[in-house]
Amino acid sequence: MMLDSIKNRRSIRRFKAQEVDGKLVKEIIEAGTWAPSGLNNQPWKFVIIRSPAIKDQLAVLTRYGKIIQQAPLCIAVFLDTAATYDRTKDIQAIGACIQNMLLAIHALGLGGVWLGEILKNSEKVRHLLGISSALELMAVIALGYPDEQTVASPRKKLDEVIVKEV
Amino acid sequence: MMLDSIKNRRSIRRFKAQEVDGKLVKEIIEAGTWAPSGLNNQPWKFVIIRSPAIKDQLAVLTRYGKIIQQAPLCIAVFLDTAATYDRTKDIQAIGACIQNMLLAIHALGLGGVWLGEILKNSEKVRHLLGISSALELMAVIALGYPDEQTVASPRKKLDEVIVKEV
Repeated sequence: MMLDSIKNRRSIRRFKAQEVDGKLVKEIIEAGTWAPSGLNNQPWKFVIIRSPAIKDQLAVLTRYGKIIQQAPLCIAVFLDTAATYDRTKDIQAIGACIQNMLLAIHALGLGGVWLGEILKNSEKVRHLLGISSALELMAVIALGYPDEQTVASPRKKLDEVIVKEV
Repeated sequence: MMLDSIKNRRSIRRFKAQEVDGKLVKEIIEAGTWAPSGLNNQPWKFVIIRSPAIKDQLAVLTRYGKIIQQAPLCIAVFLDTAATYDRTKDIQAIGACIQNMLLAIHALGLGGVWLGEILKNSEKVRHLLGISSALELMAVIALGYPDEQTVASPRKKLDEVIVKEV
């Protein structure tokens, strides 16, 4: 069941106009916060973005702007540099947090996509959202009710990624 | 169901002697490979470690060596630097991959723990395992059948991690 959900999750880039209830948004973020982190430092912070005006301004900061504009909702995920202790491990924890959120989005019948290209403009995003310089943009997740069927992107075979067994 | 699994997953540090079937190990690694990655570059590689002699040598490289020795199995996760395109995004992808593995471990009735402290000796681990310098150690996951009940480590409240809604 869990394994199927992990395999069947897809990136969704087209959304219906239907809004996403705030209760679901909190469930998604809560799922993110159940990720493990080094020394349980929980180095994540979130900004929920629904304003069409803000989405329009975000959209010009990435080549995937149309996805942001079309999504009823985005969640920006930040690394809280005040909570960090080791950059590699903290960024891994952020990745684990985002994956939990994507799995929760899928489990709730929603769809979402992890947008990273916008990190090239992370400072502009921070200014636009009026966020402290202690927070570093890690990703934007666009989500909503899916309006497309997608197929899995291919994966390397297991014997390509398992180097050896000792 | 998925959300419960995300919440109920715990770090397990004590294991029964029972071996973990190779088929389950492949399911766990396969779950890892279903994580998303930037440009679908899949920058992960894995080494399966069952040899007691190797585990003993790994154990001296971390203060959590007893967990490694007691676990019937460890999986070392590496970043394939030949496949990288952006260090932050690649490390996030590794984190997503590890989280999928931990969720799969939990879903299969096994338990595991994400060990990061050993990264202080990542080069020694690489030499011990006889791994190419193109691979960079990202974590060791110790796993097996759980021999303990654990409680959740506390989480910050949602209103502490949601900075704002715009």
